[in-house]
Amino acid sequence: MEYEKTRRNRVKRGRKKASYDKDVIHSILDQNEICTVAFNVDGKAQAQPINFGRCGDYLYLHGSAKNRMTSILAETGEACLSVMTLDAMKLTRSAYHHSVKFRSVVVFGKVRELASEEEKLHGLKTIINHFVPGRWDHCRKPNTKELKATRVLEIKITSASAKIADTPPLDEPEDYASDYWAGIIPVRTVYDYPVADEQLKDGVELPDHVLEFYKQKNRTE
Amino acid sequence: MEYEKTRRNRVKRGRKKASYDKDVIHSILDQNEICTVAFNVDGKAQAQPINFGRCGDYLYLHGSAKNRMTSILAETGEACLSVMTLDAMKLTRSAYHHSVKFRSVVVFGKVRELASEEEKLHGLKTIINHFVPGRWDHCRKPNTKELKATRVLEIKITSASAKIADTPPLDEPEDYASDYWAGIIPVRTVYDYPVADEQLKDGVELPDHVLEFYKQKNRTE
Repeated sequence: MEYEKTRRNRVKRGRKKASYDKDVIHSILDQNEICTVAFNVDGKAQAQPINFGRCGDYLYLHGSAKNRMTSILAETGEACLSVMTLDAMKLTRSAYHHSVKFRSVVVFGKVRELASEEEKLHGLKTIINHFVPGRWDHCRKPNTKELKATRVLEIKITSASAKIADTPPLDEPEDYASDYWAGIIPVRTVYDYPVADEQLKDGVELPDHVLEFYKQKNRTE
Repeated sequence: MEYEKTRRNRVKRGRKKASYDKDVIHSILDQNEICTVAFNVDGKAQAQPINFGRCGDYLYLHGSAKNRMTSILAETGEACLSVMTLDAMKLTRSAYHHSVKFRSVVVFGKVRELASEEEKLHGLKTIINHFVPGRWDHCRKPNTKELKATRVLEIKITSASAKIADTPPLDEPEDYASDYWAGIIPVRTVYDYPVADEQLKDGVELPDHVLEFYKQKNRTE
């Protein structure tokens, strides 16, 4: 299944790296805890990082009811957000061909502010389970006061594109004879072993869902 | 030295985490190879990742002369970009207090497209040396054809803010007696040992500036 290619999401530069495949796009989104959202303040575009969750074709954001960004997004009714994972730095013989291996996604969507407690809980559950799968069943659920203080936005993905760059360093033919070093520096995000809170109640063990998250993140792909 | 607090860059939520200190902001920018830029397409805010370089109060972006984002930024004359480093995931007893340790920066600036070869070379040198310090002196400089094919933007930072969140997990007093696990999962970006290009000329050794970059990135802070 692919997202429709439109004027907004079609990749113009580096077309060979582009993908519109839903599974590819969802998988890159799911590897990231944080995205960067673009929104307009007085007609000027602004970028800000925020955490998110995904469930099917829907993304969820949340913030304080007083938060400006989520308030503007709810009012605008549309959102664009982006994630990127850096996989390697590519050093070439020519300055011109320096580059990176990466996986990125840009998403466009329709925004709806969730009003009912039931819908807000679904959004927050998605965010918490995107953060650490299974976490929602192992923490205290938000109470009415906390839900009131929280704005939850649902973003229906209307179009999206991924870019995946994983080719080796490439130079101009005439540069290969030079004495300049070329190669890659691989980059990885490492999740270290979980550290219990100092005030953890005696006898509470590291739960399986956290251990499984740690193992899954450190699995060699 | 601080960036002036204005309506645009003043942090409203989580004020205790905010910093306007130039050294703090520059150091977070320098730890990142990639930023996310916000720009408007047909009046709609869009987010897109791109690499960058910093020299004092100036940031530099580059792209193909045909690239839409850099073309729009040059036309708009203003830019906002953001970087974020994730340091840990904070798992609390309550869903509500889940959070992350992070260091982020949002920058606002005036954009100027560089026209002369000399200015463009300065911008590209800054980008390459931000990528790997000292790299510019160890690669083939751009020729006239490559310079013509490249748009280079200079962004003078007019205002900026950093947010640094490094506090331990915190729960509501009544939740500490619960059996839910709480703690952190530290997150690190690891730069692995450089891998030489398969087509590297015989006898070319790993240069000091690349080895130094590798060591510096893996130094325990």
